[in-house]
Amino acid sequence: MGAPVPTRILGLDPGLRHTGWGMVESHGSRLRHLGDGVISSDDSLSLAERLMQLHQGLAKLLAEWQPDEAAVEHTYVNRNPAAALKLGQARGIALLAPALFGIPVAEYQAMEVKRAVVGTGAAAKEQVADMVRRLLPGARLARADASDALAIAICHTHHRATRLALAKGYVPA
Amino acid sequence: MGAPVPTRILGLDPGLRHTGWGMVESHGSRLRHLGDGVISSDDSLSLAERLMQLHQGLAKLLAEWQPDEAAVEHTYVNRNPAAALKLGQARGIALLAPALFGIPVAEYQAMEVKRAVVGTGAAAKEQVADMVRRLLPGARLARADASDALAIAICHTHHRATRLALAKGYVPA
Repeated sequence: MGAPVPTRILGLDPGLRHTGWGMVESHGSRLRHLGDGVISSDDSLSLAERLMQLHQGLAKLLAEWQPDEAAVEHTYVNRNPAAALKLGQARGIALLAPALFGIPVAEYQAMEVKRAVVGTGAAAKEQVADMVRRLLPGARLARADASDALAIAICHTHHRATRLALAKGYVPA
Repeated sequence: MGAPVPTRILGLDPGLRHTGWGMVESHGSRLRHLGDGVISSDDSLSLAERLMQLHQGLAKLLAEWQPDEAAVEHTYVNRNPAAALKLGQARGIALLAPALFGIPVAEYQAMEVKRAVVGTGAAAKEQVADMVRRLLPGARLARADASDALAIAICHTHHRATRLALAKGYVPA
């Protein structure tokens, strides 16, 4: 068996006003922070123009960083349908951009992300940010959206590692 | 003042499984049916792949027909948030594609569309389809989604005509 290949993962936390992104590199059991930030849309523009801003920001990110895989949070919506529709629009853009770049897009429930990063699905937002800072010492985490995006990317590297181990005949601990 | 220029309008009725489209030409007070149909996504694929199918279908449509303007229905969602999130994702794609082609995208509430086509915002779905058939004799209307999309395009031509008349100093009746 060859040595594990470094893999770039893009995590996305979609939102119409701010879509958080986080880029990590997974290499065997090592995890490295590459970058994070927020793509914002201008709320004085039309909805179509705002979605285009998000799309263009994501396309630039994908072209610059050339990630191998992407992961998007599947937010559980218990809010009103109008808010869910709005979030859905931004989420559609976040799912589309990596797909157009030909990379696989995984989806994780917020609980799975918390469980992967903190160890419990009931973790508070601040606990997630703390663990992200410990796992990725280089992360800036200027905004909560970017922290959540990095958490999603970390969650994906865990699930990936389990899938790869299973594929090789190992049984995860 | 010059003669009115023929304008191609693309109407879209977004949905993850089926996105209806209708293309009409507005020339002064004349309205002509150019085409209609449905772009479907394969529900055995991942969500990102399905959104890409819708995007590619819309991009093909826009490249082929070169519309001047687009209009998308702003569905009022009174259903559960999960359904609204799903619809939102498809709606994001429907708004993005024309914007990426550089054409303006208008949004209309379902009630405005009914009022424009039938004369009352409380019109039944079948009344809308009947009026679309009368206004656009050439329309096939194989599916309800395509009929709704043509109704949205018709609604946009009415609003456009009013805006143009106002811009010329006419007062609408």
